[in-house]
Amino acid sequence: MSKVQVGIIMGSQSDLPVMAEAAKFLEEIEVGYELTIVSAHRTPGRMIEYAEKARERGLKVIIAGAGGAAHLPGMVASLTTLPVIGVPVKSSNSIDGWDSILSILQMPSGIPVATVALNGAKNAGILAASIVGAFDGAVGNRLATFKNSLKTKVEASAREIEQKGWKEILGE
Amino acid sequence: MSKVQVGIIMGSQSDLPVMAEAAKFLEEIEVGYELTIVSAHRTPGRMIEYAEKARERGLKVIIAGAGGAAHLPGMVASLTTLPVIGVPVKSSNSIDGWDSILSILQMPSGIPVATVALNGAKNAGILAASIVGAFDGAVGNRLATFKNSLKTKVEASAREIEQKGWKEILGE
Amino acid sequence: MSKVQVGIIMGSQSDLPVMAEAAKFLEEIEVGYELTIVSAHRTPGRMIEYAEKARERGLKVIIAGAGGAAHLPGMVASLTTLPVIGVPVKSSNSIDGWDSILSILQMPSGIPVATVALNGAKNAGILAASIVGAFDGAVGNRLATFKNSLKTKVEASAREIEQKGWKEILGE
Amino acid sequence: MSKVQVGIIMGSQSDLPVMAEAAKFLEEIEVGYELTIVSAHRTPGRMIEYAEKARERGLKVIIAGAGGAAHLPGMVASLTTLPVIGVPVKSSNSIDGWDSILSILQMPSGIPVATVALNGAKNAGILAASIVGAFDGAVGNRLATFKNSLKTKVEASAREIEQKGWKEILGE
Amino acid sequence: MSKVQVGIIMGSQSDLPVMAEAAKFLEEIEVGYELTIVSAHRTPGRMIEYAEKARERGLKVIIAGAGGAAHLPGMVASLTTLPVIGVPVKSSNSIDGWDSILSILQMPSGIPVATVALNGAKNAGILAASIVGAFDGAVGNRLATFKNSLKTKVEASAREIEQKGWKEILGE
Amino acid sequence: MSKVQVGIIMGSQSDLPVMAEAAKFLEEIEVGYELTIVSAHRTPGRMIEYAEKARERGLKVIIAGAGGAAHLPGMVASLTTLPVIGVPVKSSNSIDGWDSILSILQMPSGIPVATVALNGAKNAGILAASIVGAFDGAVGNRLATFKNSLKTKVEASAREIEQKGWKEILGE
Amino acid sequence: MSKVQVGIIMGSQSDLPVMAEAAKFLEEIEVGYELTIVSAHRTPGRMIEYAEKARERGLKVIIAGAGGAAHLPGMVASLTTLPVIGVPVKSSNSIDGWDSILSILQMPSGIPVATVALNGAKNAGILAASIVGAFDGAVGNRLATFKNSLKTKVEASAREIEQKGWKEILGE
Amino acid sequence: MSKVQVGIIMGSQSDLPVMAEAAKFLEEIEVGYELTIVSAHRTPGRMIEYAEKARERGLKVIIAGAGGAAHLPGMVASLTTLPVIGVPVKSSNSIDGWDSILSILQMPSGIPVATVALNGAKNAGILAASIVGAFDGAVGNRLATFKNSLKTKVEASAREIEQKGWKEILGE
Repeated sequence: MSKVQVGIIMGSQSDLPVMAEAAKFLEEIEVGYELTIVSAHRTPGRMIEYAEKARERGLKVIIAGAGGAAHLPGMVASLTTLPVIGVPVKSSNSIDGWDSILSILQMPSGIPVATVALNGAKNAGILAASIVGAFDGAVGNRLATFKNSLKTKVEASAREIEQKGWKEILGE
Repeated sequence: MSKVQVGIIMGSQSDLPVMAEAAKFLEEIEVGYELTIVSAHRTPGRMIEYAEKARERGLKVIIAGAGGAAHLPGMVASLTTLPVIGVPVKSSNSIDGWDSILSILQMPSGIPVATVALNGAKNAGILAASIVGAFDGAVGNRLATFKNSLKTKVEASAREIEQKGWKEILGE
Repeated sequence: MSKVQVGIIMGSQSDLPVMAEAAKFLEEIEVGYELTIVSAHRTPGRMIEYAEKARERGLKVIIAGAGGAAHLPGMVASLTTLPVIGVPVKSSNSIDGWDSILSILQMPSGIPVATVALNGAKNAGILAASIVGAFDGAVGNRLATFKNSLKTKVEASAREIEQKGWKEILGE
Repeated sequence: MSKVQVGIIMGSQSDLPVMAEAAKFLEEIEVGYELTIVSAHRTPGRMIEYAEKARERGLKVIIAGAGGAAHLPGMVASLTTLPVIGVPVKSSNSIDGWDSILSILQMPSGIPVATVALNGAKNAGILAASIVGAFDGAVGNRLATFKNSLKTKVEASAREIEQKGWKEILGE
Repeated sequence: MSKVQVGIIMGSQSDLPVMAEAAKFLEEIEVGYELTIVSAHRTPGRMIEYAEKARERGLKVIIAGAGGAAHLPGMVASLTTLPVIGVPVKSSNSIDGWDSILSILQMPSGIPVATVALNGAKNAGILAASIVGAFDGAVGNRLATFKNSLKTKVEASAREIEQKGWKEILGE
Repeated sequence: MSKVQVGIIMGSQSDLPVMAEAAKFLEEIEVGYELTIVSAHRTPGRMIEYAEKARERGLKVIIAGAGGAAHLPGMVASLTTLPVIGVPVKSSNSIDGWDSILSILQMPSGIPVATVALNGAKNAGILAASIVGAFDGAVGNRLATFKNSLKTKVEASAREIEQKGWKEILGE
Repeated sequence: MSKVQVGIIMGSQSDLPVMAEAAKFLEEIEVGYELTIVSAHRTPGRMIEYAEKARERGLKVIIAGAGGAAHLPGMVASLTTLPVIGVPVKSSNSIDGWDSILSILQMPSGIPVATVALNGAKNAGILAASIVGAFDGAVGNRLATFKNSLKTKVEASAREIEQKGWKEILGE
Repeated sequence: MSKVQVGIIMGSQSDLPVMAEAAKFLEEIEVGYELTIVSAHRTPGRMIEYAEKARERGLKVIIAGAGGAAHLPGMVASLTTLPVIGVPVKSSNSIDGWDSILSILQMPSGIPVATVALNGAKNAGILAASIVGAFDGAVGNRLATFKNSLKTKVEASAREIEQKGWKEILGE
């Protein structure tokens, strides 16, 4: 695989089932990534070191996922000039996900986080690839192919439903 | 005034009109405090130093106010063993204050923030005094006097409304 | 165990599975506590007696948990000068927990409650310990050890994920 | 006026402009009332005495208004067998009124509060009159006349708009 | 049983498991009731007849439960001078119950509905009994006995937890 | 103007400034309408008569606007087979409009209301015209012209901003 | 069946179990329909073609369902003069359905969508039939029969509960 | 200025006062941009052409702002492989901004939008610059300087408040 351009971090191993979707997409689209655990609240020193060295280590984008009062994406964004993509994770005891969404989205002026949908780690991977692809024509072209495949699947699905009828598909 | 036991910090000078209420109460109740500006996102280094040295400098409580995706109270709480009181500030472009409330309240297991009401800086001052007063009888007694004064005011207000009638008070 | 410094109360035995987390932490950190049931709505007399005698009985902090229109933490706070920590409990028929959060958090000026996250009883225990630990160096030091253990666990988890890779951990 | 059957209480004199609407209606409909200030948080003793003596003093209904984490209606309901009508008041620093609505509405099983709309003190007065009027035919009949007057006003308004046209009414 | 004083209606038989709690309580407290199905949207004529005849048929209170855009309580309240208690029912496809709560609570000036908590049919029964009991001493006294039993249960529960300890109760 | 095909009703004259936008659009597009006041809660008889006779009187669509616990659109929909368009009006003491939106939108199965945006009376007029226009080619063509005019305005606005630059437009 | 007058589209085959309810009702009421998959985000070209040709193909109404940030109903509405009915679908990772409701309901001035309740596809079918039925007396009459059947079912259900009693029905 | 790399578009000229902040920042940081009006609902053809040609015209990032049911950012994202930054604009008749936030944030799998805070156009500009700066060292360095200036301002503000005291600053 190509060199590591995207860093995927999350606050806890319990976020992995959600966040792995970002990694899966980046493998498919052949954009190099790394994945580890960095906690804003439990390992602030590790977080600072990760964020401050990310640019010089050659990363182009950081994807950070966290739940509840999710401070990791915003704190990392305050410590680097790289674009940071935030993934609100719907954890247990979350208030329907509103807490992580608002903690990541509503950053103060000067420190943006590129927020995606609740549990939207796959979309975070796609967004990271689109950032890399804006400057790397090969990645951009693979993204175009991916987008086209979404269209093809919907068209196939439409043909099936038009031919079989919805009753057969639902087994009625 | 007695020695400094409470540190009041806020993310921006624009939070001062709200946060000054904490300082005012602590002066009234004669609990020593200090007040300054520390931004989680704009001065992360300063925040870490403030939080990590707070206990050894003799502080007993930290009051931290911030608006929007408010990370200051939670980040400070992750960096000290002192109790941290969080004040959600309703800033401009806030979503009715929900963002700062949830960003401060919904901290993950292990890192509590003692959250008070939206713009509740006076209550943060009272809570800080109650913490000091639990261990310092003189402060505790002054708090009891303060609580009693709340009762006296309501009783006077009740007498006035009962004697004058609500129409006179409303000027009807 | 050391003398009782923290009183844990809850409105109903059905809150016990949530609220026991506070007791568990206080045992671990060796801070003396007591735990009982006090209902603002069903035993108001008992509540008043508990709150009014708490300080003279030597308590330093009260942790109160309740669900729905949760009045226990606020009413207790109105009856004592001790710091009161409120735990919003997500009960059945709660509206996603919003009712207990707002009933505890949004206290009027003069009567603060130190609110923690929804079902955040463990954090209430930690916060109580941090209050005691601000004045009792031994407790403060044990808290520092606890905080360090959080860091250690995250670091171990990070090492594991970096060495094994996320696929092995997720069993893919 | 007839003997006092409705007690109107509120947490603070600042609630008077809203709560006076209940008194106004009860005067119009000729149901005797009293009005005073009772604070759950600032004068708990006064609240208990008010609630516990209400029935023996001849009251039939209590109307209680409060804002923020509004505990007055629910606490009074826990201390009397009389029906308690709760008026959520939208106070400053309220979160759009959600806090007072949920603190009054979501009472636990066993202790109901008859909640009306945000700032709905006039409706609280009407509801109190409907309770009295269910057992006092004369009051019930006056309520029927009042309801009829609502109809008459809408019909007059409809005739006006149909005759003049909306453009004349809006001055276009 | 005593004569029918409370009418319990609901929009659909699917509301019965929730609404039956009101009937159960009224049986216990020995207040006569009737229970049937009346739909504002599916049987408007039946609703109007029910509401308009309720007072002359001797009813003192109407309890109306409905889910979603719940119009039954408010429409009935517009058609009678009796007090109407509204029970928001959390139906399938409800938006967490917010729709039925707001459709019942936020009635316009002139037409109050005494709203209780989401799915709070038992509390609706208690509230109806408190209305009857305000004018019927025997019912009022039975309510006082009921309230006392709530206290006794909490006290027994408190004694158990204090004697056994929470660990034994939780089976730890 | 052509014969009356659209009936515009609202619960109160205070809704007129919002609801007049529907009438204005229907005049522009030359679809006949009538406008009056009908209150579900204050004039239920009038509402029933209006709804039940609407179809035989030749109406094709009813637009109903109301605020708070808005029952007019849904009740009218229950009484006619005509399509009913509901306009949630943000009245004073509304909870940010959520109450009227949910009271109109979340209708039970069997009784739909075609809900438009908060205060969206102009869109209600357009929607009514689109319903008429689906069966009346001349109206449909005028709608197409209207839609085209929206495009033309945006294109003119885009040209202006591209030529002048945003600084001149903002006066900077 | 009669000629196709209603087009039912949805963003993904996963919406079919919800959206099929619209088709079922239209079959029952004998209004011709077609059903297929059109994605605003994955097949924008297909969506534009579908919307732009709908009127000339003889459709009278389009029903469009989608979840999350649901753009299909609004985009289709921008591309046709036909009335468009939007069905908010509660998809996985939706935030309790609020996202699809607001994305469909809150359309800007000029481009209305007739929004129905969350997952309210059956109601969308009924609304489509009411639009057709406003201009086609036979359909209108079948709708009247359908509405009457709703009444009959409620009345039967009421009779059953009055005769058997609620205890027998609940099996108590 | 350097060549155009960022396209700023908005649904209406009324969004310009908010969206101009993005342009201002890009001028400061010396990243070339263009700004125009493109409406998803009023000029869908223009939108498609803009989005489909953006990459070949050399753009690297698109910033799209819109209010209410905001479809522009998501629709543009479906039509290009470039990263799209969405700015939720709080328009009049918005429901506190929730509608535009959720319409932009909650995009389905496959089509991400990089969402920033409500009215956060300046942050959108910074995020666009961080994307360009990840691949263009000079821009990255200017961003680092900008971030440093945020720190310097907070530090100056902190010094001022520490030296003057909060009373002088607030004029007390």
